[in-house]
Amino acid sequence: MSLMIELPRPFLLFIGDVGEPGYAKTALGLRDWTPEHCTGEWALAGNPLRLGLPVLNPIEARAKGARSMVIGVAPIGGAVQPHWIAALLEALEAGLDLVSGMHTSLAEVPELSAAAARLGRRLIDVRRPPAGLPVAHGRRRSGRRLLTVGTDCALGKKYTALSLARAFEARGIATDFRATGQTGIMIAGRGIPMDAVVSDFLAGAAEVLSPEAASDHWDVIEGQGSLFHPAYAGVSLGLLHGSQPDVLVLCHEHGRKHVIGYGEDYPLPSLEEAMALHLAHARRVNPAARFAGVSLNTAGLTDEEAAAALAAESRRIGLPCADPMRGGEAFERLVDACLVA
Amino acid sequence: MSLMIELPRPFLLFIGDVGEPGYAKTALGLRDWTPEHCTGEWALAGNPLRLGLPVLNPIEARAKGARSMVIGVAPIGGAVQPHWIAALLEALEAGLDLVSGMHTSLAEVPELSAAAARLGRRLIDVRRPPAGLPVAHGRRRSGRRLLTVGTDCALGKKYTALSLARAFEARGIATDFRATGQTGIMIAGRGIPMDAVVSDFLAGAAEVLSPEAASDHWDVIEGQGSLFHPAYAGVSLGLLHGSQPDVLVLCHEHGRKHVIGYGEDYPLPSLEEAMALHLAHARRVNPAARFAGVSLNTAGLTDEEAAAALAAESRRIGLPCADPMRGGEAFERLVDACLVA
Repeated sequence: MSLMIELPRPFLLFIGDVGEPGYAKTALGLRDWTPEHCTGEWALAGNPLRLGLPVLNPIEARAKGARSMVIGVAPIGGAVQPHWIAALLEALEAGLDLVSGMHTSLAEVPELSAAAARLGRRLIDVRRPPAGLPVAHGRRRSGRRLLTVGTDCALGKKYTALSLARAFEARGIATDFRATGQTGIMIAGRGIPMDAVVSDFLAGAAEVLSPEAASDHWDVIEGQGSLFHPAYAGVSLGLLHGSQPDVLVLCHEHGRKHVIGYGEDYPLPSLEEAMALHLAHARRVNPAARFAGVSLNTAGLTDEEAAAALAAESRRIGLPCADPMRGGEAFERLVDACLVA
Repeated sequence: MSLMIELPRPFLLFIGDVGEPGYAKTALGLRDWTPEHCTGEWALAGNPLRLGLPVLNPIEARAKGARSMVIGVAPIGGAVQPHWIAALLEALEAGLDLVSGMHTSLAEVPELSAAAARLGRRLIDVRRPPAGLPVAHGRRRSGRRLLTVGTDCALGKKYTALSLARAFEARGIATDFRATGQTGIMIAGRGIPMDAVVSDFLAGAAEVLSPEAASDHWDVIEGQGSLFHPAYAGVSLGLLHGSQPDVLVLCHEHGRKHVIGYGEDYPLPSLEEAMALHLAHARRVNPAARFAGVSLNTAGLTDEEAAAALAAESRRIGLPCADPMRGGEAFERLVDACLVA
């Protein structure tokens, strides 16, 4: 048994009866980030939403090579909907495994667990970490590692890691994007959902996620939470220690002043304060750890405002500062700074 | 359902066939720390080990008020021994719940789970956190809180917290010792095993463990791991954030140079470095957080050496420095410093 979740690909993307794109983010993310691993899409009758992939039923998708069907939608509450079950059974019967990022476990739906057992199919919950994760050993591993970290949650750590991994690959560098959350795991096809790991094994899970590699290979690891977050800092620190990053990239949202959902008691740190605290911990496991620069989410700004903000912050902190969503020269400078030997 | 583990007391202490005191630490700890909650002791026939409590079988213990039987021994491997099962069933039949800190779950032993279900008895694993723990809310809570923290594992954080809680009580202060590990939970009769909590809920568990209280009430919280430990720092940070301590006491072992079991790559921090990093995190959730002093484990020293070491460290860092195992004036000064308003 692998200690990482491994998803059977390519996928058939299931969007059920969810017609609102805002609730189909998993399917849309997979279409955008890994179209080469998406054989087709499938919806319940009457759903007008289309992803732009071939429309295939499970039997057709299986014939074209699909190995699993991903539930690509997240209705409010995060539960498997009773009126989806016939379609999910149809996928199992067609020879597809099922992949879900929903809160409720697929195995808790009796019809699904019975059918999967009978047919020898797998029900894969990407929120469930694999069993048997070890306690961290703390030994340095060969290969190079980059971890995205943040002043808060939900400001671009996953997107930054994906963008950097793509940019490294575009430069001909052997790179793995290492996924630590459910959406990242769907995109990468494997990973470990760090926030669901039992605390004792957090850093050990991060070590498993990013194993020894060739000395010129890069793992670009998706950060989780924030050292400054009153609920999730433990996850961030375990991931930081186990990742042993050579390079850190700090993610921040321009203009965000407080931890989302935690109000005035929790102001965000300055970029300098955030970098200092991360380095204090990172150098414990890797004395050479350094920040390459800042990924600044400027989604709320115009192009001109964003360019000005990136230039001003870069000047102020003396490191490249880029918005991966905007790319451009600023982003290439950030990539350069990551790869400096 | 309580979100804290709650153990039915008083206890009958079961030591099975374990005659070696080194493997009966749980029973010996309970006898030493909470004799008032120990109705008696019970061993298998032929075991010469005695704890000094009344020797009672389960029926006798139940008649004297015992409510549960604690497995007070930990054989190598941490598994329930097959030749104990008849005795454990006898306890369930007598009306006692079973309490275990072993690695394997009591409920995984079919005979025990069947008997418990039939008799309406509970099988309580103190390594299993309660279900339904929340994500931390981060809001300040009334009451005062002290957390013991350490430069490493296994150097006296539990013992220090217990000693301080006893000292506070001796001064007439309303105090709860808040247990975060299996032995502490046995002693306190309740608590949450932090290292077994899913990472997302770590700080939330610490908030649950130390709820709102009267403004002059103290929670003395048992620390876990170390911010400097390559495997367990995440646990330590989640516990630190959720505890929102007013006062920290730093625990260290005199002469220890490296993280136990992690070798030369992991030197222990200086006391000053350890205090600075803890305060950087603690002040995020409680701007008034401060260190009262240092608890120095001097078990390896003579009385004279220990007194000299405590005096020298106290002078050097400008804070009280005491070994709770030795008590004395140095310890009273540490207690004073904790309680300064």
